[in-house]
Amino acid sequence: MVKQERAARTRQSLVRAAAEVFAQEGFVPASLTTISKRAGVSNGALHFHFESKQTLARAVEDEAAKVVRAITEGADDVGFDALQRLVDATHDLMSRLSKDVVVRAGFELSGEAPLRDQGVDLRAQWRSWVEKVLIEAERQENLAEGVTATDATVAVVAATVGLEHLGASDRSWISQATLVQFWDLLLPRLASPDTLRRLQSGGTRA
Amino acid sequence: MVKQERAARTRQSLVRAAAEVFAQEGFVPASLTTISKRAGVSNGALHFHFESKQTLARAVEDEAAKVVRAITEGADDVGFDALQRLVDATHDLMSRLSKDVVVRAGFELSGEAPLRDQGVDLRAQWRSWVEKVLIEAERQENLAEGVTATDATVAVVAATVGLEHLGASDRSWISQATLVQFWDLLLPRLASPDTLRRLQSGGTRA
Repeated sequence: MVKQERAARTRQSLVRAAAEVFAQEGFVPASLTTISKRAGVSNGALHFHFESKQTLARAVEDEAAKVVRAITEGADDVGFDALQRLVDATHDLMSRLSKDVVVRAGFELSGEAPLRDQGVDLRAQWRSWVEKVLIEAERQENLAEGVTATDATVAVVAATVGLEHLGASDRSWISQATLVQFWDLLLPRLASPDTLRRLQSGGTRA
Repeated sequence: MVKQERAARTRQSLVRAAAEVFAQEGFVPASLTTISKRAGVSNGALHFHFESKQTLARAVEDEAAKVVRAITEGADDVGFDALQRLVDATHDLMSRLSKDVVVRAGFELSGEAPLRDQGVDLRAQWRSWVEKVLIEAERQENLAEGVTATDATVAVVAATVGLEHLGASDRSWISQATLVQFWDLLLPRLASPDTLRRLQSGGTRA
């Protein structure tokens, strides 16, 4: 049991160290030796847990996908209108992106040329949740007149992926303030007047 | 003269071949041999023009920066309102991104970890032009009540960078149809009612 715990902890620090090195140097130049050194474990221990850099990158993406799933499922559990859940989830996502290098590296890995079309596609996962929530908002008649879920999905996915990507080199793009600015601009166009009155652009957990 | 022309042509095909290989494989794994083969020139010819892969990447970024400058200066030359020039420039940019691998690779290189903070920053160049045009729109009183150039810049830069980045792996994000969908959603929120009536979300050159 103690041994298993230790193994789990080692695996965890390797995933985190890998995320740090990937975020800093990119996937391809990252060396396994740098990663094991940063995790404070031997090369042997790294190879015991991960057979290749590819497997390690997959583990980072899986970890990030779990966080994104927890954020979207957490938002789905709360009894708010669909649009408020969308706003809340984007706040959670940006806040995790600024604090958690594993989530940041996971998103960037999904977009990198050598890893594209492999493993989990975090952006596709995010996009399909955004679409689902906006379809719900449309059904609840919470969208403004003339706005469809499809149009809103394009704008919200493009902007949030843009914020995430810009945030990889300049953290101010994924700050709470920037996101509030974005929602204050977009919500009056997305939401029906009634819905808009109830919405909090800063999220309900701020 | 003939010799100079031939040299310029060789250089041009090397830049294009490099952009193709970078876009496909990413900067770091790309090999100079693959690039020179694709350009149909010898390794020696490659080294005559470019001393390293870094120099070649810089040339791709410079070439893309030139295109972006031509697009924004072209938009500035036309007598339209600031907002229409912004819409037109985004159409030109997305259309160049879908047709021209050098522009696509240039943008993606700007965001890649090993090249960040080096050479031209295409996204910063784009961002500052968008900001300039939106400040102009604000001065012309073409923005909707309560919308500032700063807020609008965040939304437009985030969304256009998002479209560009998503478009690197799925071309439909940088299609004319997607961009029209985006502007049809955003413009009624950005523009004053008077300005909106004059604006063409599909651009004036469509």
